[in-house]
Amino acid sequence: MFEARLVASATFKKILDAVKDLLTEASFDCSESGIQLQAMDNSHISLVSLMLRSDGFDKYRCDRSLTMGMNLANMAKIFKCANNDDTVTIKAQDDADVVTFMFEAKKQEKISDYEMKLMNLDQEHLGIPETDFSCVIRMPSTEFARICRDLSQFGESIVISCTKEGVKFSSGGDIGTANVKLAQTNNFDKEEECVTIEMQEPVTLTFACQYLNSFTKATPLAAQVQLSMSDNVPLVVEYQIPDLGHLRFYLAPKIEEDEN
Amino acid sequence: MFEARLVASATFKKILDAVKDLLTEASFDCSESGIQLQAMDNSHISLVSLMLRSDGFDKYRCDRSLTMGMNLANMAKIFKCANNDDTVTIKAQDDADVVTFMFEAKKQEKISDYEMKLMNLDQEHLGIPETDFSCVIRMPSTEFARICRDLSQFGESIVISCTKEGVKFSSGGDIGTANVKLAQTNNFDKEEECVTIEMQEPVTLTFACQYLNSFTKATPLAAQVQLSMSDNVPLVVEYQIPDLGHLRFYLAPKIEEDEN
Amino acid sequence: MFEARLVASATFKKILDAVKDLLTEASFDCSESGIQLQAMDNSHISLVSLMLRSDGFDKYRCDRSLTMGMNLANMAKIFKCANNDDTVTIKAQDDADVVTFMFEAKKQEKISDYEMKLMNLDQEHLGIPETDFSCVIRMPSTEFARICRDLSQFGESIVISCTKEGVKFSSGGDIGTANVKLAQTNNFDKEEECVTIEMQEPVTLTFACQYLNSFTKATPLAAQVQLSMSDNVPLVVEYQIPDLGHLRFYLAPKIEEDEN
Repeated sequence: MFEARLVASATFKKILDAVKDLLTEASFDCSESGIQLQAMDNSHISLVSLMLRSDGFDKYRCDRSLTMGMNLANMAKIFKCANNDDTVTIKAQDDADVVTFMFEAKKQEKISDYEMKLMNLDQEHLGIPETDFSCVIRMPSTEFARICRDLSQFGESIVISCTKEGVKFSSGGDIGTANVKLAQTNNFDKEEECVTIEMQEPVTLTFACQYLNSFTKATPLAAQVQLSMSDNVPLVVEYQIPDLGHLRFYLAPKIEEDEN
Repeated sequence: MFEARLVASATFKKILDAVKDLLTEASFDCSESGIQLQAMDNSHISLVSLMLRSDGFDKYRCDRSLTMGMNLANMAKIFKCANNDDTVTIKAQDDADVVTFMFEAKKQEKISDYEMKLMNLDQEHLGIPETDFSCVIRMPSTEFARICRDLSQFGESIVISCTKEGVKFSSGGDIGTANVKLAQTNNFDKEEECVTIEMQEPVTLTFACQYLNSFTKATPLAAQVQLSMSDNVPLVVEYQIPDLGHLRFYLAPKIEEDEN
Repeated sequence: MFEARLVASATFKKILDAVKDLLTEASFDCSESGIQLQAMDNSHISLVSLMLRSDGFDKYRCDRSLTMGMNLANMAKIFKCANNDDTVTIKAQDDADVVTFMFEAKKQEKISDYEMKLMNLDQEHLGIPETDFSCVIRMPSTEFARICRDLSQFGESIVISCTKEGVKFSSGGDIGTANVKLAQTNNFDKEEECVTIEMQEPVTLTFACQYLNSFTKATPLAAQVQLSMSDNVPLVVEYQIPDLGHLRFYLAPKIEEDEN
């Protein structure tokens, strides 16, 4: 028997919105410690990693570890039927081929339940090594989304250069060139609006706009985003989900042709 | 001479929005008692019935009964030119082939008049028998619209089951199954948010989502919607137009194949 | 060296939105007195004339007059990257083939610069004679935009008739006919909402809806619009840009067939 209950279904909606462009289907691994999802995106370029800790749920019971393969577009359709402040309960029997989502309105006079068939998906076990990063940038998630969207008008790639002073995003193409520079914040009044940089050594890496833009679909999940970069290892774009876990995206840098 | 004047043109806009998907053209029967419209929808499945009482208008004069055939898409275009708080006056001569809509802005420095050609339409005289219904449900119109929209993601039909305790809407298909249950309201603080049920005997009927969704275009007209159901007679979906009349939709239940 | 700085980039965004449907590319003539643009629209029917006075800028330096040919769609893409309250600085070297747009956020921790290639465009020198007009109408710009939009549902042309009492806009076609009458305002409380008419003699002229609708894209620039009309000369539709200059559109009246 698996049962997980969360007071605000809005968090699930945001997670589904954040990943449903990258993944059409995915396996949710449920265990005593929580719910985990790890999958390459449909084009096998980037990696999505979601962790929801069991202690972040309002009620959590997982008698035996189980893996539930779900079609994310269908799951998103079901969650669209929930109001943002509905309580959501996810239920499955131990060897079930269905999962049930139950939404309860706050005033409790409306109860909806949706039963969805589970899928058998090939499991890829992906080892993600822990890395020390040369640069770790924290910045407002809306600012990062805005910069990625703005710069993708000018080219297919964005160059991110990080030094102690700040971070520069650049792009270029037929129209011309674009540079956006953010300085590290000195005034720490509003933590959510800060730009902070932890740097071991400066890094300059190039990434495909298309994937960065997909990752920023997670913006509503968190006020800040964290970018971790080192030469020759994938960028990690991380959104902390308050009191519940995190959603991380991994993307390998582009090898510039003229660098050979 | 026919002349009818209403202080808020917004009501007419909402009526047109509510019926223009179902009807491309319709006859408005004007008499001393008011304006009436009765027509089968374009596919001849459902029935639309509108009644606007003469005493609900700010000014109403109808010297001789007349029938005006109108293209509803063109009428909607004309009403799009009115501001919501404009006063609207509808005028026609006794044997006229045109109707005039006049909009006056509140401050009266802007006056617009639109003249539209009338059409000769075949008149269907539809007898709608008065019925005692097994169940009459009143519920918030936005809730009904939401449920119809949500459930149509899962199948082409919605099953409505009504008992003394409450009403259940169900749907199902390839994705899975969906059930939404509303309990009768105990707390009658806000009348508009109540779910109330008058039941002679329980009823379970199946309806096509497509038509239910069309009917809910009338949601802006009224805070509550009334669903009246009996076995083997059409469902009546009724929106009261405050101080003016009502808009009703009739839809026959689907005969389930396995019921033979 | 050319450099012009404006505290609110929003004004530039609005200007680009106002002209980018009519012009795909245009030459900006920069001199000590300011920035000027004059160009026929893409179909060579109407004329756009923009004047931004140097004293309206927060900083303005133009050592030598220069003409910068720009692709307006690309320029609009660049300005979409600015926040409305960003400061914008436009810079070019004297014989440069590029122009730089720099946006600075208010808090100054974000600086973006965009470099765009300039184009060599054929220069048309257009003489616009000063005219005394028979009628000059000033009215709320949103009201003018609304009327043009509403009436273009009914026909391809709008007839504007101006007398001392007021101005009438008319249109007609298959659906029927439409007339909107505005009276001159007697109450001058809110200047922005006034309709005022200066008339030497009454005028009735016909214009193509399509162009009038394009001109009204400038509505966000100014609360009032001024229409200047005389028989046989182009209509002038003028939007004053507060403290900075103006944007004018010129459109020749249609010759009605039955007038020969």
